[in-house]
Amino acid sequence: MNNSTPMIRSVTVADVAREARVSKATAARVLGGYGVVSDKVRQDVLAAAKALDYRPNELARSMTTGKSGIIGVVVGDIENSFFSFAVRGISDTARAAGFNVILTNSGEQIEAEKAAVRVLIGKRVDGLIVTPSESRDVSHLRDIHRSGRPLALLDRALPDLDVDTVTVDDRNAAMRATKILTDIGHRTIAYVTAVDFAGHAYRGLEQIYTSSVRERIEGFLAVCREAGIVTPERFVRFGATRPEATRAITDTLLSAPDRPTAILASDSLIAIEIFKLIRQRGLRVPEDISLITFHDADWTSVTSPPITVVDQPAYLLGKAVTELLIRRLKGEIRPSQRVVIPTSIIERGSVGAPSGQKT
Amino acid sequence: MNNSTPMIRSVTVADVAREARVSKATAARVLGGYGVVSDKVRQDVLAAAKALDYRPNELARSMTTGKSGIIGVVVGDIENSFFSFAVRGISDTARAAGFNVILTNSGEQIEAEKAAVRVLIGKRVDGLIVTPSESRDVSHLRDIHRSGRPLALLDRALPDLDVDTVTVDDRNAAMRATKILTDIGHRTIAYVTAVDFAGHAYRGLEQIYTSSVRERIEGFLAVCREAGIVTPERFVRFGATRPEATRAITDTLLSAPDRPTAILASDSLIAIEIFKLIRQRGLRVPEDISLITFHDADWTSVTSPPITVVDQPAYLLGKAVTELLIRRLKGEIRPSQRVVIPTSIIERGSVGAPSGQKT
Repeated sequence: MNNSTPMIRSVTVADVAREARVSKATAARVLGGYGVVSDKVRQDVLAAAKALDYRPNELARSMTTGKSGIIGVVVGDIENSFFSFAVRGISDTARAAGFNVILTNSGEQIEAEKAAVRVLIGKRVDGLIVTPSESRDVSHLRDIHRSGRPLALLDRALPDLDVDTVTVDDRNAAMRATKILTDIGHRTIAYVTAVDFAGHAYRGLEQIYTSSVRERIEGFLAVCREAGIVTPERFVRFGATRPEATRAITDTLLSAPDRPTAILASDSLIAIEIFKLIRQRGLRVPEDISLITFHDADWTSVTSPPITVVDQPAYLLGKAVTELLIRRLKGEIRPSQRVVIPTSIIERGSVGAPSGQKT
Repeated sequence: MNNSTPMIRSVTVADVAREARVSKATAARVLGGYGVVSDKVRQDVLAAAKALDYRPNELARSMTTGKSGIIGVVVGDIENSFFSFAVRGISDTARAAGFNVILTNSGEQIEAEKAAVRVLIGKRVDGLIVTPSESRDVSHLRDIHRSGRPLALLDRALPDLDVDTVTVDDRNAAMRATKILTDIGHRTIAYVTAVDFAGHAYRGLEQIYTSSVRERIEGFLAVCREAGIVTPERFVRFGATRPEATRAITDTLLSAPDRPTAILASDSLIAIEIFKLIRQRGLRVPEDISLITFHDADWTSVTSPPITVVDQPAYLLGKAVTELLIRRLKGEIRPSQRVVIPTSIIERGSVGAPSGQKT
């Protein structure tokens, strides 16, 4: 090559040292922000670094200092606006504290979650925030812990992993939402969730490995039983992972002879498909079917009727979990904390008495 | 410590070599997947690695091979479902080709975009996909190029950066959407976009540094002028970056004596705020105001009336840009490509003749 400015080789600490006429060790101390040097030397080195357009090699730096200034995040499904609000809470909080965020998406698949954790640990993030897709297999999360990096859990607790965790009051939220339906007279109520396993049919709470889902279903079933509903678990439906799956599940529910008079949806992606299908079948909300969903997604307030929702403070959840993590990153030593953030119910127009009944 | 299993030190190549009774160089060749060894030796080393639960140090590996198996992505706003669909297209395509994806969010801020690019380069991603927030300042993108890493642009072209680029036909899409409005008789049409700068008011196309936005506004203005509208740029509004800002802009538009009879929204986050505000003011869509938005967001089909949209194939956009990048990562040498993916218009119920006029 005849070109005298090499295209790829970057400016090194040695180059800066030479330019500033100091030792490489001294230049490294200034550029790395550690050790003690005189103000004059610091100024010389920084001026040389600027003149040469020196860029720290982040990778080499992280090997030296052990700190990358980066928080790694693994969320379940970035297309779900619950998570995108949580991620904004994380990003805003991290940025304000001088951290960058890199994000990976597990698609609620445990293998993808493990791969994501491996990538982030490999990339030497300082700490991780994870929404664990299930509680059976936590070896990869133990690995984070063992590697000495702080880990905090978002939205879902793991009974076997004692780390900082921020969730909402899932059980209580489901109870209040279900009670709105039973109080107005509903006795055939379906619960539809994305969590999946072979068969899609409920066999027992112990089969549900996602804490938030188990707690919601516990709450749902408890209130149903309290209202005298026999075997309410008949109407718990799993596997609404994608629009097509949700439509198939809803289709079966709406075609049954004992069609539910109300549906509680576990997230807003599920609820919008249910809402569309109800309308496509010429049924009315709430006259024919009442509908409540978790998450105050933007669309829920603009439909006719607008939808009653469990409002989960997703942004706040992201903010709280990041604050806990950053306190650990700054060296705070304390027992792990479990923070539960309360939800509220926003009553709109999608709940009515079951058809054929007046209360 | 009395514990005989060290908590933090990880198993090294040297440990595996010792266990497998081979040299460290041989173990490194097997574990690194390079060089030639006999099948017997390979099996011994892999068995030893498994027995010791050896995990490759991704960071050290990337320094050795120069490949991390990771694609870095910088998107404008992950809360915008256009981008979350594009990210799913990217992730699915990357995963199918054996790559992991790490994601950062610029919030459409150039400084955050630069920081994100620095982080990803520092983390030695193999290549980057970026939705550049503006075209004025591309030094950080040139740096990627200079570092020898492939770069591909998503959704927005940069005139000064000749790299693989996948966009939609923004100008044409805006023309078709605007023509629907002018054909039915609208002569006072507002265009609302998130792109911001001091003053919020249009002064000329040259002030718009985001290619997709400039092309849309070009298309919008061209069709308006063709329909005989004088100074249509009076109704171009910038800075609808967040719900509050969009509401303020819409409020001003709706309060003006020459209130627009139709609004074209540049994304679905803007459109939903406009739709809510129109209803809050007791106005009707489309009787009082017609509304078209870019992006077939989930909510647009469930409102009353459902909203006419420019359907952008976001998933396909993500897929196409990732395929181009991966071909480069695999060593393909070719001139850069500019792929333009066509959009379509889904006509629903939010467009009508302007009030007081019949066509």
